[in-house]
Amino acid sequence: MTHRIAILGASGYTGAELVRLIASHPSMEIVALSADRKADMAMAEVFPFLRHLPLPTLQKIDEIDFSQVDLCFCALPHATTQVVVSALPRDLKIVDLSADFRLRDVAEYEKWYGQPHTAPDLQAEAVYGLTEFYREDIRAGRLVAGTGCNAAAGQFALRPLISAGVIDLDSILIDLKAGVSGAGRSLKENLLHAELSGGTHTYSAGGKHRHLGEFDQEFSKIAGRPVHIQFTPHLLPMNRGILATTYVRGDAKEVHATLAKAYADEPFLQVLPFGTLPSTRDIAGSNYCHLGVIGDRIAGRAIVVSVLDNLTKGSSGQAIQNANLMLGIDETAGLLLAPMFP
Amino acid sequence: MTHRIAILGASGYTGAELVRLIASHPSMEIVALSADRKADMAMAEVFPFLRHLPLPTLQKIDEIDFSQVDLCFCALPHATTQVVVSALPRDLKIVDLSADFRLRDVAEYEKWYGQPHTAPDLQAEAVYGLTEFYREDIRAGRLVAGTGCNAAAGQFALRPLISAGVIDLDSILIDLKAGVSGAGRSLKENLLHAELSGGTHTYSAGGKHRHLGEFDQEFSKIAGRPVHIQFTPHLLPMNRGILATTYVRGDAKEVHATLAKAYADEPFLQVLPFGTLPSTRDIAGSNYCHLGVIGDRIAGRAIVVSVLDNLTKGSSGQAIQNANLMLGIDETAGLLLAPMFP
Amino acid sequence: MTHRIAILGASGYTGAELVRLIASHPSMEIVALSADRKADMAMAEVFPFLRHLPLPTLQKIDEIDFSQVDLCFCALPHATTQVVVSALPRDLKIVDLSADFRLRDVAEYEKWYGQPHTAPDLQAEAVYGLTEFYREDIRAGRLVAGTGCNAAAGQFALRPLISAGVIDLDSILIDLKAGVSGAGRSLKENLLHAELSGGTHTYSAGGKHRHLGEFDQEFSKIAGRPVHIQFTPHLLPMNRGILATTYVRGDAKEVHATLAKAYADEPFLQVLPFGTLPSTRDIAGSNYCHLGVIGDRIAGRAIVVSVLDNLTKGSSGQAIQNANLMLGIDETAGLLLAPMFP
Amino acid sequence: MTHRIAILGASGYTGAELVRLIASHPSMEIVALSADRKADMAMAEVFPFLRHLPLPTLQKIDEIDFSQVDLCFCALPHATTQVVVSALPRDLKIVDLSADFRLRDVAEYEKWYGQPHTAPDLQAEAVYGLTEFYREDIRAGRLVAGTGCNAAAGQFALRPLISAGVIDLDSILIDLKAGVSGAGRSLKENLLHAELSGGTHTYSAGGKHRHLGEFDQEFSKIAGRPVHIQFTPHLLPMNRGILATTYVRGDAKEVHATLAKAYADEPFLQVLPFGTLPSTRDIAGSNYCHLGVIGDRIAGRAIVVSVLDNLTKGSSGQAIQNANLMLGIDETAGLLLAPMFP
Repeated sequence: MTHRIAILGASGYTGAELVRLIASHPSMEIVALSADRKADMAMAEVFPFLRHLPLPTLQKIDEIDFSQVDLCFCALPHATTQVVVSALPRDLKIVDLSADFRLRDVAEYEKWYGQPHTAPDLQAEAVYGLTEFYREDIRAGRLVAGTGCNAAAGQFALRPLISAGVIDLDSILIDLKAGVSGAGRSLKENLLHAELSGGTHTYSAGGKHRHLGEFDQEFSKIAGRPVHIQFTPHLLPMNRGILATTYVRGDAKEVHATLAKAYADEPFLQVLPFGTLPSTRDIAGSNYCHLGVIGDRIAGRAIVVSVLDNLTKGSSGQAIQNANLMLGIDETAGLLLAPMFP
Repeated sequence: MTHRIAILGASGYTGAELVRLIASHPSMEIVALSADRKADMAMAEVFPFLRHLPLPTLQKIDEIDFSQVDLCFCALPHATTQVVVSALPRDLKIVDLSADFRLRDVAEYEKWYGQPHTAPDLQAEAVYGLTEFYREDIRAGRLVAGTGCNAAAGQFALRPLISAGVIDLDSILIDLKAGVSGAGRSLKENLLHAELSGGTHTYSAGGKHRHLGEFDQEFSKIAGRPVHIQFTPHLLPMNRGILATTYVRGDAKEVHATLAKAYADEPFLQVLPFGTLPSTRDIAGSNYCHLGVIGDRIAGRAIVVSVLDNLTKGSSGQAIQNANLMLGIDETAGLLLAPMFP
Repeated sequence: MTHRIAILGASGYTGAELVRLIASHPSMEIVALSADRKADMAMAEVFPFLRHLPLPTLQKIDEIDFSQVDLCFCALPHATTQVVVSALPRDLKIVDLSADFRLRDVAEYEKWYGQPHTAPDLQAEAVYGLTEFYREDIRAGRLVAGTGCNAAAGQFALRPLISAGVIDLDSILIDLKAGVSGAGRSLKENLLHAELSGGTHTYSAGGKHRHLGEFDQEFSKIAGRPVHIQFTPHLLPMNRGILATTYVRGDAKEVHATLAKAYADEPFLQVLPFGTLPSTRDIAGSNYCHLGVIGDRIAGRAIVVSVLDNLTKGSSGQAIQNANLMLGIDETAGLLLAPMFP
Repeated sequence: MTHRIAILGASGYTGAELVRLIASHPSMEIVALSADRKADMAMAEVFPFLRHLPLPTLQKIDEIDFSQVDLCFCALPHATTQVVVSALPRDLKIVDLSADFRLRDVAEYEKWYGQPHTAPDLQAEAVYGLTEFYREDIRAGRLVAGTGCNAAAGQFALRPLISAGVIDLDSILIDLKAGVSGAGRSLKENLLHAELSGGTHTYSAGGKHRHLGEFDQEFSKIAGRPVHIQFTPHLLPMNRGILATTYVRGDAKEVHATLAKAYADEPFLQVLPFGTLPSTRDIAGSNYCHLGVIGDRIAGRAIVVSVLDNLTKGSSGQAIQNANLMLGIDETAGLLLAPMFP
């Protein structure tokens, strides 16, 4: 059985990544692609790397007949998303890749995104889409909110540790290194090759990055009390990949054992042997997340390093993993592609 | 039915690329991997990006039981290859990725590779592996010699034009731009990131590049008289991809029409609309080759630009395409992965 | 004696490069910097790499008191430039880095730039700023038009050969590889790191690149008859540097001897030993141009490779070299910085 | 007056960087260059980017007449260095760039470098070369030991804070991002462009990096009690530059004020306005170090980010700064070059 798929916002990187992955999916067929400003263009004009695929012409959203769609991926900017999703049929299965439905508390949304939420009912309905931790809710969900890519990298490192109570909750620090595709196709001077290549800098430092809203929500929920971590992202001269260096206080071997046990049966979360740390090169283009743990020379301190591809496991791959659950098919369908190296 | 595959030389980039692609192949199973100096290591130690795959431990070649192998990919250095292949069972299907069996004339081999060929009988048996032009021979072949990656890029641009007689044979010039993975995992100062990134230079300029042996052999054969082209490769600060800018004298529209017709039914060779030229970004990681044609402002001169991924269509993808033919399965099996962008 | 310098268009890359170079100049002092949309900002806000320098605040052009300026560099976009320069004092020494005064024939300007020239009197007055070939005119000039960066790279390879009559004039072909800073700080999708890095493509192929106007003008003048070359530029994933591979018909040794003799006393033009070809890495950030010559395997064909830094010898360094001549100081003043490697 | 300079180990990156910088130095002349395995080669063969400079031919060390040398830079590997320096005249001024004389305690040297020190008398004589904090000792010194590049980046961020007692000494953490030239010209697979570009990974994590020996020595000395920090370096796909993200507990404004005051008169250490964080792009190729401070959202925690060029301020620029002091000339001579951007 083939599931009919629509992708809204197909002219951005996560939209294109959805198309790339679905091209290898055994039971999904793309029946509609939207891109408002590029409506009526062929996808091959917008993304020539997809020219070998038979794909529908780009449309405006209101031209799509959603009665012929089984599941809709929504890869639009935040704020726009809540308006668009509000106008979609209320029985349409939706996997959203924006930030609009990640935070359950509308006050938190307004705090981090600087504007009131206009669709609080949808926000209440939405399931948080970190697959490995919300499987049953996602399977039963209608509207699933994909996580932030950095938020995913950090949570894979930390959730089992907080659940198991093996680390101090008041001294968690994530120093994160992110590739530039996470910034999307935005036209900004500092994203130009001439300015970005060959150097690095922090961004949203000092506790301003919006994915902190997700960390706060999730970690506090697990711990049953407020947990606030430190989080400093850096932009690196690479296109894909996130490396999160997470500093915790706890026994390193216990930290490792806790992660290894938690992810023993997870197809995409791979815990390396104790003392081995991962590289972003080893997951590029794939849905895998590698995690490594090492002890610091200072006793009682451990370092967890997690890597994933922000466009795949961090957004579009995660979205398909969630869609697989929602459609009742094998969770790994279409997602077992090996990474690309070099 | 699953075909049992061995890969000799699995610790290099083309070996790893074979594993990456076979991981998505519907009917191939890897039963043996060799790497002499890394024998007894797990593939995941040599290439951590493959750690999610169940793979045989690396062996020495003489430890492999070839009676349990249906087809063997040989990804060893030239010169070594002829010694190794000579010692393999004479009924074993082999796809070789080295240069050892590409040139039919042993004198040409000695001229370009600087040493006599030690297995001229095998050389005589070998089929030249440019799939789209040697399909029937490959299907019937036992030993197929994969082409040079640059040689493939140039031949896709030129073979139909020479066949059709639409260009002048004495003024063909290829200015080629190559990514660094084509140089393999060799430890050379000029391949270090610190030295290669951020700049470009020529290599093997002035008619010294060994792939000229293939161009001479193939173009002269098609034309029925000696054809010698100019060929200047450049090394670029990118990992994958070849862009061949081919300058010919002939009518540009006729050149375009000739290529478009020749490749109309080819699944992997895509001719862009007249006047549109391709980018290496649009084929990275895939088995596709894009070709574009434009006329110069000087009447009677045309420019053909062809792009392919040196590790995929230029070597390991081509090798699997040939293996598919030799095994009697669908030529495109395992090779329809979309490129990765960005 | 210190010469008072103004830079119009200081918020672009060539403007910033002028500031970088003048910071080491023994007898130039920057007294005014303009950037219309960024007026009233400190230069350190626009270019933090210049924060250690005491520099004037950015102004609008009409706020500058040109009576206090000895020489003005104009680093504005073409078309804008002719309007701005028309309004400047007619006795002010100006080195222009735009395309507006490079072509002596207004019809050629209109042909290549798509609009009529509005200041033909200034165009007639302007001296073409290829320093090594127009020294006396530049020394006596008031308005000097810097060359295109690609145009400089190609002319250094070809002018002495055309003058000496050692090559065929009807089969000259330049295949050029350019770094991305040549495109300036323009906000275009294909200049984003995510899209440019890791790949290459042609641009303005087929005889459409505007620097052909300069090649036509200069080569025809030297030859005393029309000379039209082929010219195909490629954009490379590197920030600085141009490598021009120039294919000519002529005796390679004679080609080399002709260049070596022509540039024997030039401080910035370095001809490598016969058979050695240059790399862009070896001139990055400097005012040097390296040239190499090799013979092709086909007798009677030679390849000249020239490399320079588009922002230095290709624009801002050349501009300072010209300014030095116009101010009567040592031509090399401030320009002997070694390249930066790695 | 011109000072006669020898450079031992001129075929590595720090050796070449010394030559690049000295080329612009007003009062240093290079009279001898050594490179044992490349003796008798011209420097231009080893580093073509230096071909415009008149330089002595490479020699073996024992061929150099040190009676004609005023100051010797030693850019050799550790362990080799102590042997070589032991054999040099005992009145020769030496600036060493290796690790051999950085640690005052021979036991610490053996602990971090894995072998006993063979020249403990020289180790005792050596002055630690962090210029801004050891000026008087350096001025009077004969043998000055350049610091580790990472060690410099971290100390600039932390020394004044420890001195002033404004931070907690038991929770200091440096997460460092380093460009690849810091690894030198070593031929290792993971330093190849094909493997390093496009990704990132940690190295020497968990408290194993040797520069911790310097941190321990210096911070404990300042504090008057043992101070052990956490330090995790990451290798980034860029050639030059270090960005050290230093996490401390203390009042962010006080941290900023302390650094601003400490470095108010330092020509090379630039403290940015509170809340502004630096980029490695803004110091590339220069002797400047930029420092920024921001407060975390968690009260009482501050983040200090320091950036410098590992080859310049982190090694060869620092070495020249020290040499200037030892020779009694202006400390900034030859070191005021602006960074290169883009």
